[in-house]
Amino acid sequence: MKAVWAEVITIGDEILYGQTLDTNTYWMGKELNIIGVKIIRKVAVGDQREEIIKALDEASQRADIILITGGLGPTKDDITKKTLADYFNTSLVEDEEVLEHIQSLFSKRNLSMNALNNAQALVPQGCTVITNTMGTAPGMWFERDDKVYVSMPGVPYEMETMMERSILPKLKSTFALPVIYHQMIQTVGIGESWLAEQIESWEDNLPPHIRLAYLPSYGRVKLRLTAVGTNRLELEDDVAEQVQKVVPKIEKYVFGYGDLTLEEAVGAILTKAGKTLAVAESCTGGFLAHTITSIPGSSRYFQGGVVAYSNNLKMNLLDVSEETLHQHGAVSEETVRAMAEGAKKNLLADFSIATSGIAGPDGGTPEKPVGTIWIAVASPQETIAKKISLSKDRLVNIRRSTVIALNMLRTAAQTALANPS
Amino acid sequence: MKAVWAEVITIGDEILYGQTLDTNTYWMGKELNIIGVKIIRKVAVGDQREEIIKALDEASQRADIILITGGLGPTKDDITKKTLADYFNTSLVEDEEVLEHIQSLFSKRNLSMNALNNAQALVPQGCTVITNTMGTAPGMWFERDDKVYVSMPGVPYEMETMMERSILPKLKSTFALPVIYHQMIQTVGIGESWLAEQIESWEDNLPPHIRLAYLPSYGRVKLRLTAVGTNRLELEDDVAEQVQKVVPKIEKYVFGYGDLTLEEAVGAILTKAGKTLAVAESCTGGFLAHTITSIPGSSRYFQGGVVAYSNNLKMNLLDVSEETLHQHGAVSEETVRAMAEGAKKNLLADFSIATSGIAGPDGGTPEKPVGTIWIAVASPQETIAKKISLSKDRLVNIRRSTVIALNMLRTAAQTALANPS
Repeated sequence: MKAVWAEVITIGDEILYGQTLDTNTYWMGKELNIIGVKIIRKVAVGDQREEIIKALDEASQRADIILITGGLGPTKDDITKKTLADYFNTSLVEDEEVLEHIQSLFSKRNLSMNALNNAQALVPQGCTVITNTMGTAPGMWFERDDKVYVSMPGVPYEMETMMERSILPKLKSTFALPVIYHQMIQTVGIGESWLAEQIESWEDNLPPHIRLAYLPSYGRVKLRLTAVGTNRLELEDDVAEQVQKVVPKIEKYVFGYGDLTLEEAVGAILTKAGKTLAVAESCTGGFLAHTITSIPGSSRYFQGGVVAYSNNLKMNLLDVSEETLHQHGAVSEETVRAMAEGAKKNLLADFSIATSGIAGPDGGTPEKPVGTIWIAVASPQETIAKKISLSKDRLVNIRRSTVIALNMLRTAAQTALANPS
Repeated sequence: MKAVWAEVITIGDEILYGQTLDTNTYWMGKELNIIGVKIIRKVAVGDQREEIIKALDEASQRADIILITGGLGPTKDDITKKTLADYFNTSLVEDEEVLEHIQSLFSKRNLSMNALNNAQALVPQGCTVITNTMGTAPGMWFERDDKVYVSMPGVPYEMETMMERSILPKLKSTFALPVIYHQMIQTVGIGESWLAEQIESWEDNLPPHIRLAYLPSYGRVKLRLTAVGTNRLELEDDVAEQVQKVVPKIEKYVFGYGDLTLEEAVGAILTKAGKTLAVAESCTGGFLAHTITSIPGSSRYFQGGVVAYSNNLKMNLLDVSEETLHQHGAVSEETVRAMAEGAKKNLLADFSIATSGIAGPDGGTPEKPVGTIWIAVASPQETIAKKISLSKDRLVNIRRSTVIALNMLRTAAQTALANPS
């Protein structure tokens, strides 16, 4: 079976010049991969007619499917639609259905339309219009020389909904797709090179149709196994066999498989045991609670949290004593333990996590430099605490300490639930 | 003056297949722009020798500066270094300084090195090595036919530190760079097409050396003015003149200029007035506190927050009465007002924000569908509340309601501080 290749083109000066973070092609890569479309390249060009045409020409040489995002929108910096019409030797015409859709969107929101909104109903003649259920700019599907070109808006949830509802199903029915099967082993608490050393002999003996990649991010390393073939069940078996071989070598670092996040793994442990969680944050400033509550259904086990930036709140809401704060300081083992225990009690939870540290970039001292962070986890049986030394980067420190804190909770919860007191 | 063009190449299957979000080229775009380097294209290719070489060849046709990130690291999926050595007709040799640097990093962290770490000291002969102060993989600078090629690791803070300390200064001294001046006007609370309509006549009369772009994201729209010329002071004056003309037309939506974020704007208002803030979150689950505390120095005005997921915590920590919760439900004007007032009182703050809603994707009812969110802001004088109706996407709802909540606080704080009671 011939591989089907896609190239993704993003249009917009704001992507080139770092005014907008491109999350679209990240999302698209994941989705294309799942349906067995290979990706040859991702390209970003500016809002320049010539550059758009060059990118389309080049992509046509390499790919069967050319997906375009961005460059559509009501304001005047958008030239994509005109360029597409020219590229496909056609002209822009008003589409009745699109116009009605835009009109109904505006009337639902009690807004009136202006000329710019009206112009959004123009599409290149002959293309297949893809309805944008989340917004006003329509998607456009073109076919030429056995290749498919799809233009989508750049607003992430508009593009995503359009892909999910229309474009991915249409690609699946248009192309004969090979089978690519991925399995991800999620690890935490071990560095990339050490992980590689632990599994070196296994990796050297992988069969040729299975590839391994290491994907590190903020204290976690994902191991991705990719198998290519024609029979999904066979590939699944082949990969499962390799997973069974490798996991015993790294068991204590593995928290899950597939797309499972650390916060989902923690949620699953708590849900299964019927236990609840609360957090008390200082240096992580709400990011720990946000990470936990980003999971749908987290209200089943997450009671809530306190972000105690001021010492007053550490005392009032978490029962940290003035003496502890005075004697040891806010960034100390004693304070973070008291915070965890106070949160467990006052927020009515079985488990709790507390963080206190100097996130930076300023505020360090020679004894407690920026990046010094204390984390405590309280279980029904005990409270454990750990000091970590991170970087000078505030957001990196917040993210990394959140990962370490969640992993401490994971380990503590597993121990506590295996040995109930 | 001839424009200097850069092309950015990212190497890694994980970028193509959506396993890693590319934040590197976003950051690089911003930094290149500031020093007056134009960006012709951004390209991502997989860990494939042929694709890397093709991308290098094509970039050489278009750009003066070719910046490469990713594909460097201790594990075996990395082929970039060998490909670069071949591309520049040279071979890999061990670099003494790099080896010493890696050794000292490991001994500082009390770790021992393995063979993979040792291999990181290999570099293509003849390249200029750029020290990686944050990690083990060195940067490499090549020159050929008046073009510069720089290969950097893909770990964001390693690449960023390397760019800041070595590569950007070296680019500035190597090339004669034109002057590009950007000014950003930050707006919130008005849609892109309506903003465009308000300023249409002004936009039509912009001088030819100044361009305008609309950059929307989560309820905010940035207006970017870009001026190109040779004299920075002249460009600054030209842009300032246009800003003075346009801002009065959209004054109530403008919260700041440049890279200022809404959370920084709010922080500046509170700091100037010497007032404090607390938050009580239900549906935003900690993201509001995180957004506020992502700003260095936020501890000066941010007292802290409560994430009250359970009704018990709404009662215990925020003094919401059982009757209010029973009669109106957790997602109601009455509850969110009580939460804001409880947070202001119990968390000892001058201002407070509260959120309560159904973030989704599940949990809606016909009366209160997913996306129904109540927000309240309490000032020293009054409490105001507002209901918004958002989407079914949990993370989009969390982000958008955070923006709307911060903007409500901004407006309320400005009013309260202009008319002290």
